[in-house]
Amino acid sequence: MNKESAILFLSCIDRKGIVAEITHFITMYEGNILNCDQHYDESGMFFMRVEWDMNDFAILPEKIESAFEPIAVKFEMDWRLEFSSDRPKMAILVSKYDHCLYELILRSRAGELNTDIKMIISNHEDCRPIAEYFDIPYYCFPVTKETKAEVEKEEIALMKKEKIDVVVLARYMQILSSQLIEAFPRKIINIHHSFLPAFVGAKPYHQAFSRGVKLIGATSHYVTEDLDQGPIIAQDVVRVNHKNSVSDLVEKGRNLEKSVLSQGVRLHLEHKILVFGNKTIVFD
Amino acid sequence: MNKESAILFLSCIDRKGIVAEITHFITMYEGNILNCDQHYDESGMFFMRVEWDMNDFAILPEKIESAFEPIAVKFEMDWRLEFSSDRPKMAILVSKYDHCLYELILRSRAGELNTDIKMIISNHEDCRPIAEYFDIPYYCFPVTKETKAEVEKEEIALMKKEKIDVVVLARYMQILSSQLIEAFPRKIINIHHSFLPAFVGAKPYHQAFSRGVKLIGATSHYVTEDLDQGPIIAQDVVRVNHKNSVSDLVEKGRNLEKSVLSQGVRLHLEHKILVFGNKTIVFD
Amino acid sequence: MNKESAILFLSCIDRKGIVAEITHFITMYEGNILNCDQHYDESGMFFMRVEWDMNDFAILPEKIESAFEPIAVKFEMDWRLEFSSDRPKMAILVSKYDHCLYELILRSRAGELNTDIKMIISNHEDCRPIAEYFDIPYYCFPVTKETKAEVEKEEIALMKKEKIDVVVLARYMQILSSQLIEAFPRKIINIHHSFLPAFVGAKPYHQAFSRGVKLIGATSHYVTEDLDQGPIIAQDVVRVNHKNSVSDLVEKGRNLEKSVLSQGVRLHLEHKILVFGNKTIVFD
Amino acid sequence: MNKESAILFLSCIDRKGIVAEITHFITMYEGNILNCDQHYDESGMFFMRVEWDMNDFAILPEKIESAFEPIAVKFEMDWRLEFSSDRPKMAILVSKYDHCLYELILRSRAGELNTDIKMIISNHEDCRPIAEYFDIPYYCFPVTKETKAEVEKEEIALMKKEKIDVVVLARYMQILSSQLIEAFPRKIINIHHSFLPAFVGAKPYHQAFSRGVKLIGATSHYVTEDLDQGPIIAQDVVRVNHKNSVSDLVEKGRNLEKSVLSQGVRLHLEHKILVFGNKTIVFD
Repeated sequence: MNKESAILFLSCIDRKGIVAEITHFITMYEGNILNCDQHYDESGMFFMRVEWDMNDFAILPEKIESAFEPIAVKFEMDWRLEFSSDRPKMAILVSKYDHCLYELILRSRAGELNTDIKMIISNHEDCRPIAEYFDIPYYCFPVTKETKAEVEKEEIALMKKEKIDVVVLARYMQILSSQLIEAFPRKIINIHHSFLPAFVGAKPYHQAFSRGVKLIGATSHYVTEDLDQGPIIAQDVVRVNHKNSVSDLVEKGRNLEKSVLSQGVRLHLEHKILVFGNKTIVFD
Repeated sequence: MNKESAILFLSCIDRKGIVAEITHFITMYEGNILNCDQHYDESGMFFMRVEWDMNDFAILPEKIESAFEPIAVKFEMDWRLEFSSDRPKMAILVSKYDHCLYELILRSRAGELNTDIKMIISNHEDCRPIAEYFDIPYYCFPVTKETKAEVEKEEIALMKKEKIDVVVLARYMQILSSQLIEAFPRKIINIHHSFLPAFVGAKPYHQAFSRGVKLIGATSHYVTEDLDQGPIIAQDVVRVNHKNSVSDLVEKGRNLEKSVLSQGVRLHLEHKILVFGNKTIVFD
Repeated sequence: MNKESAILFLSCIDRKGIVAEITHFITMYEGNILNCDQHYDESGMFFMRVEWDMNDFAILPEKIESAFEPIAVKFEMDWRLEFSSDRPKMAILVSKYDHCLYELILRSRAGELNTDIKMIISNHEDCRPIAEYFDIPYYCFPVTKETKAEVEKEEIALMKKEKIDVVVLARYMQILSSQLIEAFPRKIINIHHSFLPAFVGAKPYHQAFSRGVKLIGATSHYVTEDLDQGPIIAQDVVRVNHKNSVSDLVEKGRNLEKSVLSQGVRLHLEHKILVFGNKTIVFD
Repeated sequence: MNKESAILFLSCIDRKGIVAEITHFITMYEGNILNCDQHYDESGMFFMRVEWDMNDFAILPEKIESAFEPIAVKFEMDWRLEFSSDRPKMAILVSKYDHCLYELILRSRAGELNTDIKMIISNHEDCRPIAEYFDIPYYCFPVTKETKAEVEKEEIALMKKEKIDVVVLARYMQILSSQLIEAFPRKIINIHHSFLPAFVGAKPYHQAFSRGVKLIGATSHYVTEDLDQGPIIAQDVVRVNHKNSVSDLVEKGRNLEKSVLSQGVRLHLEHKILVFGNKTIVFD
């Protein structure tokens, strides 16, 4: 919506005058503030996301960081700057299930996702026709226990070469190793097919069926070294009952997964998420 | 949560520098900004809710309005100022159904609602024992077509005398006349037992049953002269099916009504609502 | 799931012994009852859906109707018989928006919808590539006020020739005339992009925006002569707030529409719906 | 609704003719079948709940069991018989939080719960005024580690003496020992304040806060020897976000708990639940 805006994320220990100092900085250089959100947690931390119009802003985009640096130092901030005009480049990793892949592509084409899908990477050939139909490069890297480390290196090289900004695991059935995770820190989004932290690990629908829950869930989260333990971005649930077999749960879950993954990816692409510790602050 | 804070609501035509000017005003007088929310609509209007800590604030509460006046004039703002320490005084109007009445009293006692329930007014005696148990003054004003205008005058006088700030219609089965509505502008909250604008008017559950809808709803809204047409604050729905009779809808609806009314009342009491035209901006 | 089962739907005035008579009929001929659902409404009507395994059933499928006739006559039943092995043939009517079309095709291919999509009919060329990719015949019939009656006749002829069992309006932007509706009675399913009966007719998202509702909905229903007044099959809602523009509602609504339409179509294809008057009984 | 009906629950290995045999049994003795639900699981088990009108039924209530016995033996059924006219006698166990207690009492008085609340048992005096206001006997049994076994014996004796049919733990902050659980098998319903199996045990809201989930839940379930592991009856969730402190979760959770506990209790009281293994079949 705001084609040309700058977005500043920051966190620091709460002190008086932070909001005013930042808004003053922006206004002093003729920036019109579009959104300004804050959050305080109970440990005394302060978090902020502020977005302003870059039209008429007196500082060039590439100079903002150095201009802002003194304020950041003064308040000992963790911070980052993004631009709404930056259109993140996405790689989608997928195995055989195609429902999340289709959903991401279709939402992207419908203008719901601010991204260029630069490539689809898979350990199987199954989804290649989809890539061809939508004219997206498709790379197939079969993975075995022996080749995994080597294959991941190739994948990293490929994604780095194409300047990939965000990696989406769209029901990708391989556990990523540290090297891949570290290559894209806080840039890998996964969909787990349960309401985390319930049913971590393999076959969550089987676990849910066997426990007799009355709702099943899906969770999109950033990938960290701890399996299914990364910061949660979005979650939702759908009602099930005793009539539903495991395959009914899989079917209901499929439609939940594609929705919850899309929500998580959208929030990331719209520059709305600040990760702090193992939690997300979603300024939405 | 913030015992001593000031909350400024404003709306005006959008121009550059509003946010900065306001945050500068607050900070200049040593106010620590706690929350700052903005909204822009597509017609070019700007809306803001900003809350700051009154501890250390250099201007006395009663002097803030005149200190802020020049800024308001400059930007041609509509604005109002509230204080979190102001605990609104509530009157609850009720007829015979007691579920919303109980919910409001119990949530208030549990600390969920920032209010003093000063009185219960009814056109029936049925709820008097509840008032007595919870030690709340109960006033019974039987209403007939002939006496209605006169009775409302007495009710207004009573509420004005007790400095009532917010009037909650907790399934009150009388249509208020203009004089009462005008006496408490944007301070009367009603619960309508449908998903407005569907099923306006009488017997919405019967209407819903007869239309065969698969969800029923409830809506809390400010009361205006147009029946069931005032600004909507909160809405929710619950699933129904062909097995449900009208009386099942009434039962399911009862639990929805008490929840949706409480949500609407809570948002009002927490100073989170800005009404513009016939819509609410809920800064939550 | 039950590849070879018979499904009997019936309605009649409630009397003692109906369930027993029907279950006795089925068992007498060696049918194993798989599901047996009843419903009674308050006007004294009885409704039933009973499904039994056709393996070992002593009556041939084509002879069941005449064998059952005496019971139907005795209780003055309205009734119909369906077979789970009958795979309904679907025609999808679409204009330019492709999200519902994709959803139906993808769910069908994923095995969620028990149907053969035999054709896509449109008044525009836009969706032809989708049809080609998925290898479904695509017929484009441009419609003008003058040609509408003639075009519909051709469409009816085409669908009758292909023995279409169910017609799905997947955001088809033409109002059907009586001749088309009558040609496929209770076999045309539409998605309306509001929570009916709120916001009947054109531009429901604009209506919802302008009323300031806090939830938007979608409704799948059978098409009757009265626009947006047919029996409701499925409904759902999604939360919106003041930040959402009309185009945000359109986007959120798009994902709701595809889900609610799919639910409605699935229930129809799984032989779970009995229409009585202007309401549906969904045996699910 | 059906004042005088019998309800038969049964489970056995699936075989042809069960439904017909049972419906024939009922009809042979002039019973009008009101509801007949079945369920098959994938291991080949058959489950049934059938309800019939006792008016005109030729067998006296106390004779039905022996009349039905031969069928039960033939199919090797687990079965039980209940009567809608049996109004279960309830004991509510509560500690200090009163929100679930109020909800159960108020819903019971509103006619939503088919029960007589015969007593409230607590380990604290806090809720006594509520009991007095609603005229329900209140028994206070302070519990210490040393006295626990002895106290439970007294509680069991008291509940047995009053012929208690169902025990509801309305946020009762004591873990029941085996003797109490065994004294009321499948008759004790608890509310756990999380979406089980996530956040088993103490302080689930703190656990949820610390994990950063985007939804919190509540679960009503039958109490078994394994803490928070019993058969789940009902579950629901509510959305939370980073702004919510632990105490906000507690508040949101409170309203969820009272709703989910009431749902679970209602299903039990309406004779709609069949427990099989560690799961519930809810015929609703």
